[in-house]
Amino acid sequence: MRISQNYIKSIKDTAREFESVNHELLTRAGFIDQVASGIFTILPAGDRVLKKIEAIIRNEMNEIGALEIRMPSLHPKSLWEQTERWNSVDILFKVNSRHSYEYALGASHEEIVTPLAKKYIKSYRDLPLALYQIGTKFRDEPRPKSGILRGREFGMKDLYSFHAHQQDLDAYYQKVSDAYIKIFQTCGFTDIKITEASGGDFSKKHSHEFNVLTPAGEVNLVYCGACSFAQNEEVIQGNLKKCPLCGSSDVKTDKAVEIGNIFDLHTRFSNSFKLTYVDKNGENRPIVMGCYGIGITRLLGAIVEVHHKDDLIQWPLSVTPFHAQLINLSKHDSSYADLIYRTLKAEGFDILYDDREDVSAGEKFMTSELIGSPVRLVVSEKTKKNVEWKLRDDDKINLFSATEIIKKLKDFYSA
Amino acid sequence: MRISQNYIKSIKDTAREFESVNHELLTRAGFIDQVASGIFTILPAGDRVLKKIEAIIRNEMNEIGALEIRMPSLHPKSLWEQTERWNSVDILFKVNSRHSYEYALGASHEEIVTPLAKKYIKSYRDLPLALYQIGTKFRDEPRPKSGILRGREFGMKDLYSFHAHQQDLDAYYQKVSDAYIKIFQTCGFTDIKITEASGGDFSKKHSHEFNVLTPAGEVNLVYCGACSFAQNEEVIQGNLKKCPLCGSSDVKTDKAVEIGNIFDLHTRFSNSFKLTYVDKNGENRPIVMGCYGIGITRLLGAIVEVHHKDDLIQWPLSVTPFHAQLINLSKHDSSYADLIYRTLKAEGFDILYDDREDVSAGEKFMTSELIGSPVRLVVSEKTKKNVEWKLRDDDKINLFSATEIIKKLKDFYSA
Repeated sequence: MRISQNYIKSIKDTAREFESVNHELLTRAGFIDQVASGIFTILPAGDRVLKKIEAIIRNEMNEIGALEIRMPSLHPKSLWEQTERWNSVDILFKVNSRHSYEYALGASHEEIVTPLAKKYIKSYRDLPLALYQIGTKFRDEPRPKSGILRGREFGMKDLYSFHAHQQDLDAYYQKVSDAYIKIFQTCGFTDIKITEASGGDFSKKHSHEFNVLTPAGEVNLVYCGACSFAQNEEVIQGNLKKCPLCGSSDVKTDKAVEIGNIFDLHTRFSNSFKLTYVDKNGENRPIVMGCYGIGITRLLGAIVEVHHKDDLIQWPLSVTPFHAQLINLSKHDSSYADLIYRTLKAEGFDILYDDREDVSAGEKFMTSELIGSPVRLVVSEKTKKNVEWKLRDDDKINLFSATEIIKKLKDFYSA
Repeated sequence: MRISQNYIKSIKDTAREFESVNHELLTRAGFIDQVASGIFTILPAGDRVLKKIEAIIRNEMNEIGALEIRMPSLHPKSLWEQTERWNSVDILFKVNSRHSYEYALGASHEEIVTPLAKKYIKSYRDLPLALYQIGTKFRDEPRPKSGILRGREFGMKDLYSFHAHQQDLDAYYQKVSDAYIKIFQTCGFTDIKITEASGGDFSKKHSHEFNVLTPAGEVNLVYCGACSFAQNEEVIQGNLKKCPLCGSSDVKTDKAVEIGNIFDLHTRFSNSFKLTYVDKNGENRPIVMGCYGIGITRLLGAIVEVHHKDDLIQWPLSVTPFHAQLINLSKHDSSYADLIYRTLKAEGFDILYDDREDVSAGEKFMTSELIGSPVRLVVSEKTKKNVEWKLRDDDKINLFSATEIIKKLKDFYSA
């Protein structure tokens, strides 16, 4: 991508006060643009990061045999009445129609996926079934805050699974939990804290939340430094002196943000829609369900909260919008930089090429730092037929030939 | 994809009356599921076709230098008031919030993209700019009909371009028109009729519509058999005896469906938002805009309307959900079919593998015909270590080795 050809530039919006790090850094570097409270446009660089996150998620969902579908956001009122959630879910947006229909705007999709499953699942042969989508959710949050960590409209992956009995659900639930850990680790989170929660308004059965520690977090997490124990402070009675799991006294409390959750819905929604199957003995039995969410735009925000330094984003290799940023400093001659750009693109690398002619070297370096890709390449009169290679996390600068640069990029991203 | 492992099966919903071919064929073959009037869920096979359509569109959008973004669907009322469309656009869905905000549900995105452009475009150096998204649109259609040809919620690619002067817009407008022709041809439409229209409620300036002839169409198109002339019957005064372009008397009238449109918005929205730029002489000048849409789910429906025979879908090669459907007829032994499946998958082909054990050969062939991929492969006791190859559009059946099958598939899809 050439910056000169209408790349939406980073903006220096220093006058404005931001309420969170992700909001500020993503806005300044041109990844997102706020439309209204809790509502954002994702700009080209942000779209690139989201596509990479989505590919990571899709890959793991397909690995566990889930099928991708696309459910609508307009949900007929009657379906939400059938689950008795039309009046009870307070964050539900409601849509008027001049034709007197009323819809809920999809805040979650049990009301759509359960009747869908009912059309296709007849007997035990049709089970298990797992369906997921990557789409948009709408929630009428009273106080949207923390940038894209909590919005009124946001990207989400939601997965729903259908099983003949609890045992089969339990096994799949564990599979999804393992897949979630993989997804979050691939996205650059090294320390995922899993907590057991009460299940919100979905279920009285158990549910689990996946959290990462960050000062931007909205929950206080009590966790053990010696084992995997973690729990939301609200759930814990009184002051915890020792870890209830391993007995260690290395118990800490820190802020965390929830990036995923999994729910055992049991028959909560199957009952509402009379979703049953015929077992091997010809008897009608209720289907047990699980649901599993990952907030995708929230994940983008959480990555920035965890991966930034000195007010600059530091993208993990797996989700960086660009493998490298190429800066041309040769005045009045961009031919060699152009050649390098074309060559790297042809090799399959995503390159942001700063080919602007009317901008100082200082501003080009600043733009590059704001965007935060792991590799910076510079071509100038000084570098002659070589290219300057610099890693974001390393002060060393070295000169390499174009062939060496390709090899170094390949090694860097396959490592 | 293995049918036995929870592929959402084709359903024999013969009792039901469908109002259109695309609705009936896509439902029976398990590509879509209707939730309510004008509202659909896209099932796994449908999602595969949409992904291929989207990739074709993305490719051409990137070729003409457009940048992909994601705009929200919740549009603050104030923005639609600023363009004086809050009360005048009758298909606009409106959203309540318990916090007294009111939103429009995105029916188109000028109200979002114009203020966005205003933040980034300051001078002539920032022009031109072209931004597109692939997302969902919501329109409160009085009578949703024709399956997924006209819905209340549907997939759309919308592109917006910003220019310093009319001449630059005109050149880009032509570029987009050429890209649209390429997109529609790649999607399997050989005969695109371009009509000039009045511009709806967007603009009094010119606009063009891209149509394909099909009895399912909602407009009557008058067109010339000898040249490219085409016009909506409504626009033409009286009965046309001779083509106004070439004078031929080969003038026909047929039904057509609109699959894309392009609008010269001129300064309609720039004026509302005071979107201007500073020219080389330091003077403030208005920006001229174009907007360009392709209904993506509508395109899916139009493909089915144009490409079906004897009540069976015949997917064009470019958007087929599966390159081939592999059927195992060997009883109690799926080992060879499994091997073929794995091998073809590893070669990068999308294969639907009918590995069901409890289903008759007849039902397997019927499922295969319903889904409508161009190539059918069969493994049975009779075929021994070979594979039966049959093209959908050809009655010949031949036996080939696995190696030959791979070569034939490669040749077939690269041709």
